[in-house]
Amino acid sequence: MSQPLRILVSNDDGIDAPGLRALVRALCEVGEVAVVAPDRERSAVSHAITMTDPLRAVPREIEGCRGWAVSGMPADCVLLGARELLPAPPDIVASGINRGANLGEDVWYSGTVSAAVQGGLLGVPSVAFSVANLDFEPIDYRAAAAWAQRLVPVAARYLSADVVLNINVPNRPPEEVTELQVCRQGRREYRTTFERRTDPRGGAYYWLGADLPLDPAIPGGDVTALRAGKVTVVPVRLDLTATAALEPLRGWLEEGLE
Amino acid sequence: MSQPLRILVSNDDGIDAPGLRALVRALCEVGEVAVVAPDRERSAVSHAITMTDPLRAVPREIEGCRGWAVSGMPADCVLLGARELLPAPPDIVASGINRGANLGEDVWYSGTVSAAVQGGLLGVPSVAFSVANLDFEPIDYRAAAAWAQRLVPVAARYLSADVVLNINVPNRPPEEVTELQVCRQGRREYRTTFERRTDPRGGAYYWLGADLPLDPAIPGGDVTALRAGKVTVVPVRLDLTATAALEPLRGWLEEGLE
Repeated sequence: MSQPLRILVSNDDGIDAPGLRALVRALCEVGEVAVVAPDRERSAVSHAITMTDPLRAVPREIEGCRGWAVSGMPADCVLLGARELLPAPPDIVASGINRGANLGEDVWYSGTVSAAVQGGLLGVPSVAFSVANLDFEPIDYRAAAAWAQRLVPVAARYLSADVVLNINVPNRPPEEVTELQVCRQGRREYRTTFERRTDPRGGAYYWLGADLPLDPAIPGGDVTALRAGKVTVVPVRLDLTATAALEPLRGWLEEGLE
Repeated sequence: MSQPLRILVSNDDGIDAPGLRALVRALCEVGEVAVVAPDRERSAVSHAITMTDPLRAVPREIEGCRGWAVSGMPADCVLLGARELLPAPPDIVASGINRGANLGEDVWYSGTVSAAVQGGLLGVPSVAFSVANLDFEPIDYRAAAAWAQRLVPVAARYLSADVVLNINVPNRPPEEVTELQVCRQGRREYRTTFERRTDPRGGAYYWLGADLPLDPAIPGGDVTALRAGKVTVVPVRLDLTATAALEPLRGWLEEGLE
């Protein structure tokens, strides 16, 4: 019999998040799961890492699997798990299931995606899962868990580590989520307003607004495919070079710096 | 007479960092500078944003220019500056000058680069500057400041907002830094070890190690060009889609999900 698939699960909603538990239960059926996740919510922390403080890692069994609650960020968890806590690097990193969409430019802010990116930077195939509730409805993790169970073994077999997968699943019952589309990163276009308030002592402070983004329709983009009820899979490149911009950039620098 | 170039300066080392002051002094000569920067050091915070706490913005004059010290992350500063504090969005965002290299995969972790990325996401041409001290030597910001003064007006004129520039300058006296190279993102290959220690009460904690990265030589990569004494300019794409991976991904998903 072959070795079981060794899966490292992390997230950014924290080790007690229901989305992480749903992912662990689903992946236990297809491999040997170890959880290394933040000990509290760390949403929108992007790829932050902890250098100026030490990390704590408290053992915690999660859904019958071994795990650790870590006092750091998602990227810290994957680094510490792969390099220190686990006896060997995992075969695949699975991050999520995030409570909320990571579509379009959300990828830049997402702690969920950054856990997967950190896996990729370590040379491990890595996948991020999110349930895209674009409408503030309560979240149903079942469809995303079922798709994760199908997709993780396939990704472990085929995916190379220079690309990570950003997967979003519509917030609908499993029987309504039957199609998958490989997409480009779409566009959200946040309006990003701030609300200025005054504290009881007369000082100003600012809340980042919570307006929904414009989500312009872009054919082949993930936002548009998700809205059509499909599971979206975007391959994210770890090499951020804008290759097509290299030659024009050489041209205008030469001209402009004369 | 034409309107002065309106430049928003931010960073991740904090508003009191000498690199920011060097950048402000240099850019005052070529435009109208406003500073919106974190009120403390926020290194390696990547593209984190602050949603669960409000932000404070305390006015602070920096090198004779108007500025605000903000209680958030670099990306928060650019958002708050462009959307709330300044009367109008700036013509260009300049981030830095960072104390230390942002080469290769550092881009994923860098708060300096993420301030520029946030500018790009807002549709503003944006540039990040770092002094690459690969050897723990004291930092000399003069060469980077001089190059920033030359490059910012050119970038404001030619750069489109779907690409941001990640610029690293060797840590050498200005007269020794005479060449610029447009590069791809290179590779650093951090060894990433953790040091396990025990606290006085017997609990374990982990420090992220500080080993220097391997910095493998990659022709055309920024690490290699920087080591050769050149200013490196990498165009960073805001669309993270791994375009070349789209077709292979469709193929193996079809095969694997049968």
